[in-house]
Amino acid sequence: MIADLVLDVLNYVGIVAFAVSGALKAGEKGMDLLGFIVLGFSTALAGGIIRDVLLSRLPPVNITYLPYQLTAISASVATFVFYDKVSRHRDVVLYPDAVGLGAFAAIGADVAFRAGLNPLAVIAMAAITAAGGGVVRDVLAAEIPVVLRREVYATAAAIGGGIYMLLYYSLGRGPALLGTTAIVVALRLASLRYGWELPRVKNTA
Amino acid sequence: MIADLVLDVLNYVGIVAFAVSGALKAGEKGMDLLGFIVLGFSTALAGGIIRDVLLSRLPPVNITYLPYQLTAISASVATFVFYDKVSRHRDVVLYPDAVGLGAFAAIGADVAFRAGLNPLAVIAMAAITAAGGGVVRDVLAAEIPVVLRREVYATAAAIGGGIYMLLYYSLGRGPALLGTTAIVVALRLASLRYGWELPRVKNTA
Amino acid sequence: MIADLVLDVLNYVGIVAFAVSGALKAGEKGMDLLGFIVLGFSTALAGGIIRDVLLSRLPPVNITYLPYQLTAISASVATFVFYDKVSRHRDVVLYPDAVGLGAFAAIGADVAFRAGLNPLAVIAMAAITAAGGGVVRDVLAAEIPVVLRREVYATAAAIGGGIYMLLYYSLGRGPALLGTTAIVVALRLASLRYGWELPRVKNTA
Repeated sequence: MIADLVLDVLNYVGIVAFAVSGALKAGEKGMDLLGFIVLGFSTALAGGIIRDVLLSRLPPVNITYLPYQLTAISASVATFVFYDKVSRHRDVVLYPDAVGLGAFAAIGADVAFRAGLNPLAVIAMAAITAAGGGVVRDVLAAEIPVVLRREVYATAAAIGGGIYMLLYYSLGRGPALLGTTAIVVALRLASLRYGWELPRVKNTA
Repeated sequence: MIADLVLDVLNYVGIVAFAVSGALKAGEKGMDLLGFIVLGFSTALAGGIIRDVLLSRLPPVNITYLPYQLTAISASVATFVFYDKVSRHRDVVLYPDAVGLGAFAAIGADVAFRAGLNPLAVIAMAAITAAGGGVVRDVLAAEIPVVLRREVYATAAAIGGGIYMLLYYSLGRGPALLGTTAIVVALRLASLRYGWELPRVKNTA
Repeated sequence: MIADLVLDVLNYVGIVAFAVSGALKAGEKGMDLLGFIVLGFSTALAGGIIRDVLLSRLPPVNITYLPYQLTAISASVATFVFYDKVSRHRDVVLYPDAVGLGAFAAIGADVAFRAGLNPLAVIAMAAITAAGGGVVRDVLAAEIPVVLRREVYATAAAIGGGIYMLLYYSLGRGPALLGTTAIVVALRLASLRYGWELPRVKNTA
């Protein structure tokens, strides 16, 4: 189906952007080449791995499908080799990263929905697929995951999970995949542009 | 069976108390609303998810059973909304938290025992079900898990795993479930009351 | 087969050494007796557990096979009891630790290869089996995993995954198991002796 093809391309965009984000974090923390590869690989592919473990799709596609692995590792090594240049232009990566967020959310919702999960679990799987890798990256960097602290990121992916189901029932699977991706990307870019944040408590404790 | 019904009620008490404990940690760390929900959900349900992954009960019941998810998320959001009030009375939460520790330990031991695991693994599964969520909470908060450092908490749950087996063989499954819960709750409350701690080394290094 | 027997012995050497390394980290962080046991157990057995989860070998052998568990727990408790002595001689542990790295890498590659994974995944599973426990240990200690920052450790295990496949196709399974172990141990000890490090970026950011 055409939607699957389009999504497959966007998926690779996301793998590259997520791997770069993981590798940059490795550089920030003074890790060696192995650290770049592990953080790049994890940021790009761990969200899908966690999803597949929870849904008993084993071994996970992100472990068995060589093109995904090679893409993530190549992007990590390239970030290592051209570290200064990539590091200086890290804001540019935010755009393909948003594309990845949308594509991963759509794929995660699609997999969970077709596995027969309830709506809340579909939403959770969209968020885990898209933002789980970033959580693993930050845990390995001994930091509080940034997605739990600020910006509209995992939240955009979670909203995508809900949108997928609405579009699926109204327009079918193809429009659901592409529409979810487009709306999550738009939400993410708008949140960056306008500085949207989720509410937080006034910490008076 | 009556024991299952009683345990089901206590299980919900535990989900609420654990979610509140996770959400309070999110507030302590300056997280946003999503952070409250993720830490609340994880603290309440991640222990059972890890158990189910290890025992190949997939997808995990804590992912597929909507009432558990809604309870955990509602408690997390309520903690967010009434943060000042809940934060001031956090000592009160220690009582339902102890009830949850007991119920989760009994359920974890029951699941592991009926899956045919060896006694040491039953004990480990009781502890993981009851204390695994707290470990995930602390890892996401970039802290050393408190259960590894002080108080009798996971230890009480592990002891519960052993008690479950003793009671199962002597009195049957119903008394094992309820007796385990009661003894773990008593152990936990007594340890709080009398300040029991596990031994530690004198760190002369 | 003789290779399996030899590897089984080396595997126990590794479990003891890894558990000691985890328990020493627990002591360094001021954990209590439960912390010693959990970190010792995790360092010794979590790598194999993660491998088995990803390959759907559930419940994981490291959960169900009592001798592994008892060995890891005994070594952890012994480190607790004799903490000063073990802590002063921690450099001695580097030798059995290298043996464990080699044996775990060979076993991980063997399991992954026979499960039909692609070569890159076999390499990853060798590294995860051998170094995954150390990553879990450091995450539970709220530190950046040392294997991502310095020394040739997980890298030696990953190289072992490649060597296993070369030896398997040229000489058969027995030589692959023993040859992989020997080469990984040699790589690890040489890297310690000569202070080998992986390359890292000059952090000019």
